Amino acid sequence: MLINDILQILETKGLDAYIVSHGNRFLGQDILESEHKIKHLCGFSGSAGALIIGRKGCFLLVDGRYELQAVQEVDNSRINIVHRIPNISNICSVLEENSMGHIGYDAWCWSATDMSMAQNRFGDLQFTDIGDLVNIDALKPVKVLHRDTKYAGQNVDEKLQIVRDFLARQKADYFLLTAADSVSWLLNIYAEDLPYSPVVRAYALVNVRGNVELFADNLQTDLPCQPMAELVKFLEKTSQKVLYDAWTTPKKIAFAPMKYATDICQKLKTIKNTKELEGMFNCHIRDGVAVTKLLMWLEKNWQGKTELDVVRKLHELRLEQADFFSESFATIAAIGANGAIVHYQPTEKSNKQLRQGELLLLDSGGQYLDGTTDVTRTVALGIPENEKIRDFTCVLKAHIALARQIFPVGTRGSQLDGIARAILWQHGVDYKHGTGHGVACFGNVHEAPVSISNSAKYMFEEHVVVSDEPGVYCEGQYGIRIESLLASVKSEKEGFLEFTTITRVPIDKNLIDVYMLTADERKWLNEYHQTVYDLLVSYMNKEEKKWLKKACSPL
Amino acid sequence: MLINDILQILETKGLDAYIVSHGNRFLGQDILESEHKIKHLCGFSGSAGALIIGRKGCFLLVDGRYELQAVQEVDNSRINIVHRIPNISNICSVLEENSMGHIGYDAWCWSATDMSMAQNRFGDLQFTDIGDLVNIDALKPVKVLHRDTKYAGQNVDEKLQIVRDFLARQKADYFLLTAADSVSWLLNIYAEDLPYSPVVRAYALVNVRGNVELFADNLQTDLPCQPMAELVKFLEKTSQKVLYDAWTTPKKIAFAPMKYATDICQKLKTIKNTKELEGMFNCHIRDGVAVTKLLMWLEKNWQGKTELDVVRKLHELRLEQADFFSESFATIAAIGANGAIVHYQPTEKSNKQLRQGELLLLDSGGQYLDGTTDVTRTVALGIPENEKIRDFTCVLKAHIALARQIFPVGTRGSQLDGIARAILWQHGVDYKHGTGHGVACFGNVHEAPVSISNSAKYMFEEHVVVSDEPGVYCEGQYGIRIESLLASVKSEKEGFLEFTTITRVPIDKNLIDVYMLTADERKWLNEYHQTVYDLLVSYMNKEEKKWLKKACSPL
Repeated sequence: MLINDILQILETKGLDAYIVSHGNRFLGQDILESEHKIKHLCGFSGSAGALIIGRKGCFLLVDGRYELQAVQEVDNSRINIVHRIPNISNICSVLEENSMGHIGYDAWCWSATDMSMAQNRFGDLQFTDIGDLVNIDALKPVKVLHRDTKYAGQNVDEKLQIVRDFLARQKADYFLLTAADSVSWLLNIYAEDLPYSPVVRAYALVNVRGNVELFADNLQTDLPCQPMAELVKFLEKTSQKVLYDAWTTPKKIAFAPMKYATDICQKLKTIKNTKELEGMFNCHIRDGVAVTKLLMWLEKNWQGKTELDVVRKLHELRLEQADFFSESFATIAAIGANGAIVHYQPTEKSNKQLRQGELLLLDSGGQYLDGTTDVTRTVALGIPENEKIRDFTCVLKAHIALARQIFPVGTRGSQLDGIARAILWQHGVDYKHGTGHGVACFGNVHEAPVSISNSAKYMFEEHVVVSDEPGVYCEGQYGIRIESLLASVKSEKEGFLEFTTITRVPIDKNLIDVYMLTADERKWLNEYHQTVYDLLVSYMNKEEKKWLKKACSPL
Repeated sequence: MLINDILQILETKGLDAYIVSHGNRFLGQDILESEHKIKHLCGFSGSAGALIIGRKGCFLLVDGRYELQAVQEVDNSRINIVHRIPNISNICSVLEENSMGHIGYDAWCWSATDMSMAQNRFGDLQFTDIGDLVNIDALKPVKVLHRDTKYAGQNVDEKLQIVRDFLARQKADYFLLTAADSVSWLLNIYAEDLPYSPVVRAYALVNVRGNVELFADNLQTDLPCQPMAELVKFLEKTSQKVLYDAWTTPKKIAFAPMKYATDICQKLKTIKNTKELEGMFNCHIRDGVAVTKLLMWLEKNWQGKTELDVVRKLHELRLEQADFFSESFATIAAIGANGAIVHYQPTEKSNKQLRQGELLLLDSGGQYLDGTTDVTRTVALGIPENEKIRDFTCVLKAHIALARQIFPVGTRGSQLDGIARAILWQHGVDYKHGTGHGVACFGNVHEAPVSISNSAKYMFEEHVVVSDEPGVYCEGQYGIRIESLLASVKSEKEGFLEFTTITRVPIDKNLIDVYMLTADERKWLNEYHQTVYDLLVSYMNKEEKKWLKKACSPL
């Protein structure tokens, strides 16, 4: 259906607006292109957003990363672009501000938490479940694959035991898991349908004896699996104690007698076991080989090439690596002003030629059977101007500040966020995105709840993996971002943690003003480059070795 | 009543536990000594805590500041001291962990938010309002005084207009204000009953025409005022739209048809107007004179003196200052190991002699008619050891890092918290208290919602006042804290803020290792001391001038 059709239905039903979320029943998880309701309705292709189709106006809420992109993709004579984080509070505020009080929504696509927040904080708004009006979500069959314990590091029985113990402690009968990445992690399963995330999109009902039932309508699997409708039937009538996580469970199936509990798998999966850490370290070497070879290729071959040429070349280089599965998100190769569009992806339409004197921002990652990568490097084509060198060095200082920070167990993501931004703020510069996100091991490249951002409540523990990606963006000119993944490890001092950087790709020294670095920062960078050299050199031929040696030589 | 009496009542009523909050009907506001229910029951005298009197055990929840103090004050054979922030979630967790499911409480002493959190997150616990079982709260008559606009900077009509506009926008009839500091700020009134906060403890009902009715049972005032019982009657039966803030309103009077809204005065009062800022600047000079004279006196006279002598002398010096009203909290003068007890206050019983080689931590503040102060200085008696110098210099670096930080409008308190702690964390050191709290202008020395702490969601705006007070505490040895108040002001760069330090007291240079400071830090300190000298010198006699000159000379 299109916006006009939906507006007609609203009129018939006497409703003021219909709200459309980015996700489907697997709230907040990756979606297929064909499932992108908001793109279908208004053209906005970003990976987060909320659309209000209202009789008094249409509103697209997007966060800082997508402000520029939304303007380019959306017809703003029809749709008002609102620069607010697309959460339910902001959606409700926009509804209130525009005097739209009777709202239709699809209770499968909004969490129980979303709707109780809306109810509690915006008592004057009335929400009615009128189901999916967009109707583009056609399910295709998906095969469930089993992940080898040599990669997962822990077998399913061990993981289930933790859930069973939890259920016993809570005197509960069932845990309903509704987050695709929790289910995939718990059962060591994966799938190939999503372009960038190997998760299986299914719900799982785990009972206190450790029996598991999957619920989905399109899975080909040897595991017990029933249609979603059966789950709804069961939940409606059961008198047993079922735990569920209101943040990841659709309002549709959050029946009143069910009990709230945090999905313990969400947190458990963020703490990598020894095998997973080993896998993450190893795949980062192979991924580092691919990205470093790309940088070499680029230096010699950039002339006459386009952003999409870079994307394709990098894909080829990753395909050569052992255990490569897929990219972990759509590669961002952004030249010049495109780099200032934080989540720009080149398309046939937007594709630009690489040009002398410009910066190329390259943000990409891979899914490997043993782990997941995500790395951003910004490189100069030709000799860069002083202004770019100054900004790049500031971003590098911010990146290093976080990478070498020691901090107590339990430190909040927002505290670390301030530490990364401090140096940029001193120069009157900020970036409109988080500093870091959790990264799964062969799972979602954005793994909740680990986060480093202005309001991240997450409390750090040992052995989580998080990105470190400060940036500077000059609209219409250039974008700079430096991103590596960090793993949290015990520090010498009892009760403290520190980060070890696991990404292995040189940082462009042509963009560094060495006089702006402190002795500690220079030492950090030289040691980092030495490690990159040591780990990558054996994968390189003679000519590549020479390039690598130079790229990694001390400042 | 005593714990045993309460336990008997619980048995009679078939309840497992009774929970006792620190506050009274004015949740979270300052209380009189005679109103301290937790102290009455178990001896703990701290300014925050929660007591569970349970048939399966008694538990006192205290935060990091009070861990040592609780151990000293409480009989731990009867009461288990629990080191968790005393909020409702942690209280419920302790109740659950100890299998106490039927809980009695006094619905006047817990906020509507507290109880709905308890209900939503801990569905298995059942709470019953059984009123006040402690019964020590005997009301005394209190006179309401009017604050001159020359200090308040804004008259009552102007302030009421903001509330009226808000009510009109919300299409509401009334705003029920239940926070004592909101009511006092809105009506430019104050009182003298509390030892440290000049707020009037009353509720106010403001209607859309700007009429105000106070509710309290002990006020002597020329303003319209009715007994609390009348308010309950009105709220019970009214069909009009009454807004209330669930965070500051007791569960008792949060009747279902009332509508939730944030108490707008809470935020408005944190943004100081020109007169208030002027008053804050001015009173900090006079307060600086008092504290600086104390430091001079101390240097010459400390031998043979005790902590309480310091408290008394400082009080005398503040009494000499114009427009001094009261202290803003009980002065902390802590020698040696007492300094490691974060909120230690010397009493006749704990009072200790000052000793050579020890550090004295002095944390105090004043209420003046034109503003409120809060300052901590740590000074060495005799020649300090290297370890203390190293720790003091680290704390100073943390203090300066925050004081000279530039940051965007809207930066979260938790982000700034990380920036202050970063340098200490690098040394494997942390402090178990927030970095900063908001400070009112002639009001609460701890003013919500401004905060700089690990989980502070507060977003900074122009013209708020906040403390900057990192510390290092070595249990059994010494405590170091450096605290000044900062005001947020526009920075050069559009959209950014910076701090200006308004506290005027020298920082002990004998405790600084100048080689640990960067050039920027040294410059900051020298400029700070120059300002202190320039502003205080005219209040000093010849001998004092000499001392001040030396104390403020450049490093």
